[in-house]
Amino acid sequence: MNYSNPEFEYFSYELEHVDKKTGARAGTLHTPHGDIKTPIFMPVGTNSTVKLLTNHHIYESGAQIILGNSYHLYLRAGDELIAKFGGIHKWMNWDKPVLTDSGGFQVFSLAHLRKITEDGVEFRDPKDGKKHYISPEISMKIQQNIGADIIMAFDECVPYPCTHEQAKLGMERTHRWLERCIKAKTNPKQALFPICQGAFYDDLRKESAEFVSQIPAVGYAIGGLSVGEDKETMNHFINYTTPFLPADKPRYLMGVGTPEDLLDGIKGGIDMFDCVLPTRNARHGSFFTWKGKCQIKNSQYQEDSAPLDENCDCYACKNHSKAYIRHLYKCNEGTGQALMSIHNITFLINFSQMCRQAILEDRFEEFYNEHYDKFL
Amino acid sequence: MNYSNPEFEYFSYELEHVDKKTGARAGTLHTPHGDIKTPIFMPVGTNSTVKLLTNHHIYESGAQIILGNSYHLYLRAGDELIAKFGGIHKWMNWDKPVLTDSGGFQVFSLAHLRKITEDGVEFRDPKDGKKHYISPEISMKIQQNIGADIIMAFDECVPYPCTHEQAKLGMERTHRWLERCIKAKTNPKQALFPICQGAFYDDLRKESAEFVSQIPAVGYAIGGLSVGEDKETMNHFINYTTPFLPADKPRYLMGVGTPEDLLDGIKGGIDMFDCVLPTRNARHGSFFTWKGKCQIKNSQYQEDSAPLDENCDCYACKNHSKAYIRHLYKCNEGTGQALMSIHNITFLINFSQMCRQAILEDRFEEFYNEHYDKFL
Repeated sequence: MNYSNPEFEYFSYELEHVDKKTGARAGTLHTPHGDIKTPIFMPVGTNSTVKLLTNHHIYESGAQIILGNSYHLYLRAGDELIAKFGGIHKWMNWDKPVLTDSGGFQVFSLAHLRKITEDGVEFRDPKDGKKHYISPEISMKIQQNIGADIIMAFDECVPYPCTHEQAKLGMERTHRWLERCIKAKTNPKQALFPICQGAFYDDLRKESAEFVSQIPAVGYAIGGLSVGEDKETMNHFINYTTPFLPADKPRYLMGVGTPEDLLDGIKGGIDMFDCVLPTRNARHGSFFTWKGKCQIKNSQYQEDSAPLDENCDCYACKNHSKAYIRHLYKCNEGTGQALMSIHNITFLINFSQMCRQAILEDRFEEFYNEHYDKFL
Repeated sequence: MNYSNPEFEYFSYELEHVDKKTGARAGTLHTPHGDIKTPIFMPVGTNSTVKLLTNHHIYESGAQIILGNSYHLYLRAGDELIAKFGGIHKWMNWDKPVLTDSGGFQVFSLAHLRKITEDGVEFRDPKDGKKHYISPEISMKIQQNIGADIIMAFDECVPYPCTHEQAKLGMERTHRWLERCIKAKTNPKQALFPICQGAFYDDLRKESAEFVSQIPAVGYAIGGLSVGEDKETMNHFINYTTPFLPADKPRYLMGVGTPEDLLDGIKGGIDMFDCVLPTRNARHGSFFTWKGKCQIKNSQYQEDSAPLDENCDCYACKNHSKAYIRHLYKCNEGTGQALMSIHNITFLINFSQMCRQAILEDRFEEFYNEHYDKFL
């Protein structure tokens, strides 16, 4: 595709180091709202807030970039209202980078409520039954109204499992839709990341990665993984796909983000991760530690005066005991869920930055081996 | 009662000024965990947390003292566990003053689950049906285990409405129980506030206020108001009762705390207030402004870029628009409820401190007249 990308005036990526043994990468992505030190975990703020947390605690967690969901923000509060407020940074008073997804993943998840054509997808809002329509052009308009720094191509997510034919049709449509996204997009202060699809077929993953790679983009995403397959399968397709993506650009693995997934993804050449699980699991009592995953409901913590993790510097760990947080959780106090959300987000951001440090020092393999099994 | 009170070594109250026209009072209560500038609104932290808020935001709200509920903390996490942690300040990592109620009000509210005798009250935990028993001595033990700075006498709260005979029996039992509380209490770093009862009968209120006043306490409470009566009735009994209480000691009106209630209470000579409504109402979308009470769900705020209140310096108002908070609220995001809780608490604390300033400048009547009608 012959096309010069004005986004490069506002965005750039430096690949700072590649770990000698594993190929894991450390870099910096420069954006109009600041730098992102990769590999990085990005907390998800579906409705323009990370659930239960004030921005104060999100900043304090060390978050370098957060996600918003276009599908949700289009339906409520409405992308046009967010545009009236000057975009999502002003809307939610967050001055660091933001990334929005395209809405595609959520729309395709509405299995019985949507109708797909070559032009786009018609769907009903599950809350009120009203009809809506999103196409590549409309997704670009929505994401430009929202105004995130990084926006995602509108892609077709095929169901899991699916046949080679289904996967190929979905991939080809994703490629056609990508070209329409590029044409529809106008704001160079937003970086449009193409998404590589191809489900669980090597030939398609290669074809898709090569297709998106010929587009001079700020960064590239791998979509359609972590949709129900086992970890071994996911890791195969990460490792298989990344060599076909440009080495000098960041790679974003969409919707992935437990500690062990980060280790595998980073080992496979991924730079950016997002996942709702750290906050969702926190609301269900699960928390990360450097010894592995734990459950606050367990009676062993009833009188435990130690923090959630002895080596964590998050607000919850600096201030509260497991016994206190467990009590709040057992009383169904939102403060307990908020403290555990703060912890899990901080933990994963710190975890990604410790991976980064290990990469810079060529000891990522040791880091991987030291920590991987704890989280299984 | 001939009794010297060792609490005066750790607690004292200075009545700094009495408003010339109204008799409203400004003072300072010194406690082992810091000073309280009265009149003061005290946020309620039932389960040893103010609902949805981290301590960071409670400190930032300007809270000078918070409440815990002995009944709830006795059942969960357990007062003995809190004692093992060194008391509620260490348990919840809060280093300013704390006040606990006696548990009486909650136990008496369990109309069908409790049995009252002269010795105490047997009740069942509504959550698991288990039997429990609280007497004046047990309430003191629970409150000493919890370790708040100010603890409350275990009193009998008669139902509303009730006959003169019921009210008299309840009051007399409250007085006998107060004497048992005083005998059972041992820690001089906790100030035990006697509670005046007497329901809605002038003769009983006078008798009860005079009875408690002969006890040399750090402060005194008025209980049994705001239990269903109209505002005029409540205000009559505030105004009728306070003259019988010592002028040189703080007076705490239990369970009361809307802006208009604060104005009436302060005018009637009250110094301390607590209420769950500011946080409960926040969770239901209601917020205070200097123009009166408002409801965030109202469509007029859908595109409103102004803060909840133009003159409020709380975290929510410094950082967010009504439109954004309304969006969070409509999406059922706890962050929206947390922001409105921060606002309502900060507003009421600021409100109480502006009353204080008006008293110090002998213009409380003007302050009252300027603001009262807005909140009705």
